[in-house]
Amino acid sequence: MFQSFSEPSHPEQGPPRLAALRQVMADEGLDGFIIPRADAHQGEYVAPRDDRLSWLTGFTGSAGFCVALAESAGIFVDGRYRVQVRSQVADVFTPVDWPETTLGAWIAKQVPAGSVIGFDPWLMTLDQLRDLKKQVGDIELRRVSNLVDRIWDDQPKPPAAPAFVQPVSLTGKAHGEKITRLAQTLEPATAAVLTLPDSICWLLNIRGNDVPRTPFLHAFAVLHDSGEVTLFVDEQKVANLGDHLGSNVRVAPVDTFLSVIASLNGPVLIDPASCPVIVADTLETARIELIEARDPCALPKASKTDVELDGARAAHLRDGAAMARFLGWLDSQPAGSLTEIDVVTRLEQERAETGQLRDISFDTIAGAGEHGAIVHYRVTESSNRKVEHGLLLVDSGGQYVDGTTDITRTVAIGQPRDEERRAFTLVLKGMIAMSRVRWPKGLAGRDLDALARVALWEHGMDYGHGTGHGVGSYLSVHEGPQRLARTGTVPLAPGMILSNEPGFYKPGAFGIRIENLLVVQEAPALPDQTVPDMLCFETLTFAPIDTSLVDTELLTRVERDWLNAYHADVQSRIGPLVDRDVASWLTRVCAPI
Amino acid sequence: MFQSFSEPSHPEQGPPRLAALRQVMADEGLDGFIIPRADAHQGEYVAPRDDRLSWLTGFTGSAGFCVALAESAGIFVDGRYRVQVRSQVADVFTPVDWPETTLGAWIAKQVPAGSVIGFDPWLMTLDQLRDLKKQVGDIELRRVSNLVDRIWDDQPKPPAAPAFVQPVSLTGKAHGEKITRLAQTLEPATAAVLTLPDSICWLLNIRGNDVPRTPFLHAFAVLHDSGEVTLFVDEQKVANLGDHLGSNVRVAPVDTFLSVIASLNGPVLIDPASCPVIVADTLETARIELIEARDPCALPKASKTDVELDGARAAHLRDGAAMARFLGWLDSQPAGSLTEIDVVTRLEQERAETGQLRDISFDTIAGAGEHGAIVHYRVTESSNRKVEHGLLLVDSGGQYVDGTTDITRTVAIGQPRDEERRAFTLVLKGMIAMSRVRWPKGLAGRDLDALARVALWEHGMDYGHGTGHGVGSYLSVHEGPQRLARTGTVPLAPGMILSNEPGFYKPGAFGIRIENLLVVQEAPALPDQTVPDMLCFETLTFAPIDTSLVDTELLTRVERDWLNAYHADVQSRIGPLVDRDVASWLTRVCAPI
Repeated sequence: MFQSFSEPSHPEQGPPRLAALRQVMADEGLDGFIIPRADAHQGEYVAPRDDRLSWLTGFTGSAGFCVALAESAGIFVDGRYRVQVRSQVADVFTPVDWPETTLGAWIAKQVPAGSVIGFDPWLMTLDQLRDLKKQVGDIELRRVSNLVDRIWDDQPKPPAAPAFVQPVSLTGKAHGEKITRLAQTLEPATAAVLTLPDSICWLLNIRGNDVPRTPFLHAFAVLHDSGEVTLFVDEQKVANLGDHLGSNVRVAPVDTFLSVIASLNGPVLIDPASCPVIVADTLETARIELIEARDPCALPKASKTDVELDGARAAHLRDGAAMARFLGWLDSQPAGSLTEIDVVTRLEQERAETGQLRDISFDTIAGAGEHGAIVHYRVTESSNRKVEHGLLLVDSGGQYVDGTTDITRTVAIGQPRDEERRAFTLVLKGMIAMSRVRWPKGLAGRDLDALARVALWEHGMDYGHGTGHGVGSYLSVHEGPQRLARTGTVPLAPGMILSNEPGFYKPGAFGIRIENLLVVQEAPALPDQTVPDMLCFETLTFAPIDTSLVDTELLTRVERDWLNAYHADVQSRIGPLVDRDVASWLTRVCAPI
Repeated sequence: MFQSFSEPSHPEQGPPRLAALRQVMADEGLDGFIIPRADAHQGEYVAPRDDRLSWLTGFTGSAGFCVALAESAGIFVDGRYRVQVRSQVADVFTPVDWPETTLGAWIAKQVPAGSVIGFDPWLMTLDQLRDLKKQVGDIELRRVSNLVDRIWDDQPKPPAAPAFVQPVSLTGKAHGEKITRLAQTLEPATAAVLTLPDSICWLLNIRGNDVPRTPFLHAFAVLHDSGEVTLFVDEQKVANLGDHLGSNVRVAPVDTFLSVIASLNGPVLIDPASCPVIVADTLETARIELIEARDPCALPKASKTDVELDGARAAHLRDGAAMARFLGWLDSQPAGSLTEIDVVTRLEQERAETGQLRDISFDTIAGAGEHGAIVHYRVTESSNRKVEHGLLLVDSGGQYVDGTTDITRTVAIGQPRDEERRAFTLVLKGMIAMSRVRWPKGLAGRDLDALARVALWEHGMDYGHGTGHGVGSYLSVHEGPQRLARTGTVPLAPGMILSNEPGFYKPGAFGIRIENLLVVQEAPALPDQTVPDMLCFETLTFAPIDTSLVDTELLTRVERDWLNAYHADVQSRIGPLVDRDVASWLTRVCAPI
């Protein structure tokens, strides 16, 4: 079982740890110290060693900051975690609504001009530091070694899991070819510093096990315009790769990373959105010219190869069969007989039974009733509740070696209420609109986002998150730069995988989300087409949508046709992959409406 | 009759004038000279004196540039004018597709580094110059007095039409109040330089007659944080205003404008998007600190007062009655019996018969058949064609003292073809979607633009212009900063008037556009609303939409209901304003479908 249901921390540990931190701050002449959730690679998941925020404060959310000052300590959490943080941290920590209140603005209010705030330059990005500087005025931001590491006696060691090869049979392109092609795009830069593990893993066709949920290898790399790569990683971790990396990839110890980049000939490309401050500092001190640009791997990684797309399709059929078994089982359980943990456990078992599950792609969200309205709810032993009459929202995914899945289904337990059916149908209309849209090449996610919302808007409703995120190929389930959201400015391009997950949340009552993964495709030509190049989405996800929650009066004929065609596809693709009982259940729930 | 149908220029005049210009260029040691269509106020219409581009080249479009070099001369025109330019200019001018090819990129290809290109610093904005500089590399851009003015012997005098008061009964807010309120927003600037006539006219509650189609007064102004305004204008032009301007507005001769701004205490606000280069130069030479920001009048002007909105509603009913008379008349004419000029003439007569038409708000576009596909078609004696069986697109508007209108209707002459009905219905679906949308406060036009396109996209179709533009209050029919377009980044706010005009154009065959004006309103509360602040559109325009062009099979029930409700409104609001024959025609064409 990958998922656990423990409460991973305890508020009472916070105060003594904060006191110890303040002692070190005072010894160093600091008026404050910033503790981000992030590690040096800015991923969504961190290794236990890097979970400093949770160790210090007790807060276990996947994003946030603590700013420890002599007299106060702010814990900055976003809208997902405003309830959770209050139960996880002691009252020596003051929750701050972030990003509405920025770190800098809060610090500037708490301490006088001339104060000195320390931060670990490995853990803050260049963009973050610049934003912070603009806001703090005459407060000094000082680079220091990590003060939490100094007081954390039993801090775990860095992860040491062995890397492994992601073969060309799954990536569709040899890493030598990727390197050669990207190296040619660097000009006028002579090298690019890569600090994002998914970029490095994609570029070198390798994967790792350094953090949960995402098959990352923690490493740094330099891509040289000569077509060579220097990979900074614990050599033990890549010992198993044999001759996979080849002669153009040189492995170097992690602790030589800064000295090697300091000796590069410029200009050197860095991505200020992810580059640790210490990397930029090192290059600047060495008087190397910097070119700030997007990580050069980001766009090529986002546009999947045909082989990766075939893998994604296979993974989604496998995952769809597991979902069908799970949903069929769920449908047969009486209301009130299950808990949220039972639901999560069964779903993971169904995925594991495929025999090919490497990990879940994130902790399954199974929110019954009002828990469904907590967008990133994670059930624990103490939050666990019975799945009673009402709605159950299940958002989950699997990491398979050929693809990463992410699917949300909301199902009615017992007879749904009118309010629930109406909201579900409006969400479904948005989800269908996005599934069906074709659009002229060149548009970005922000140009399409409204299509998934307009039916909800009409009824005075909306959802407070983007419509969709990019998804990696046996990599991170949240992968940029493409997004279906008002913040999505990257033109959508063939091969990009995106989630399509509109929702509606009534706090204290219920939550609805319906999510399929989509892949951008060239749109097939139409007889009277006048726009030459159009794109459309192919749906990857096949699992039934609960038609007991659909108010057909609210659907147009076209929307109803889409839903019936989708269910026919679910039945024809997933039916042959499941046993007879599940297949006959599928036939029933996929019947046209 | 405001509109004329003459061919306003002749290609054969171009070559001798270009030769004369090249002589002056050579005398001045210049390798080139830039002639924009614009005047110093960057408006859409220019006075005859400022129509240098047309005088030199023959090209009469409303935007563009000429770059005259010793051996070549580029004429830069956008997509609207690519056909027109070829018939208007002699072959000494090379048409250049702009903005795809920028002035700077073209110049840099034509002349060697070290060349000197002259420009008139009154006619280029700061933003334009900066863009140009980035592209020309080592070519010098030199400010010079206008070379065209030197060779244009019979250049008309500057316009001298008297200004007049736009009373508070029409604006809803005294200019003293506007000035006081805006003056308080200038900090940290101590003054703002205003160069846009619509900003100045709005701020001072005055109008003028300096250019056709837009009741502008050409002037410059400085808004001081003291709550005073210095208005730089020919004193004769404001002599009629009596004591309207009041003691807080000081009138100063235009030729003191630069010396007065040079003596301001900084910082001074300028808008780089519209500020002439010479204004920024003058301030910089005087070492006055500049603050670059949007013209401070732009947003308050865009959000109309309740009085202005009442005026707009009245103007639209009056204009709607004229449209009904016109459309009823048109419907009674046999196919082939009218020309495009007959159509334009009759429509202007119907507007004039209201007794309140001050001007048309732009030259009426009446495009029969393939002329409908020319988005900004203006009929002339030589282009005039018969209105035969097919589609007729009529885009027009009136300037009334209480409001500016802009409406497009496309009507079938005879029995429409299936292809035309399908395209019309898809355009209508987009127009209805935009009319019906309600959305959470804070969104901009770019967040909504796709709603008007998605039905066309589905069939491989689209239109190459924005969905809508802002509209002034007895001011410019094209007014920013709000737009319904992918370039519209300003949040929509109550009181903003916008056009909603999706279209479809099949070159060489037909054009379709359907346009109503809309005003942003607070959306009325709904029973189960969960988003607290939502906005919606109120429709201002009432005129029948040709239902013979509607394929009801392609409409949803909701769309059909909207159309029927709209037509019921047209009949109940316009019916009482027209005579019996027109009223009974209205009843017929507004019948539910």
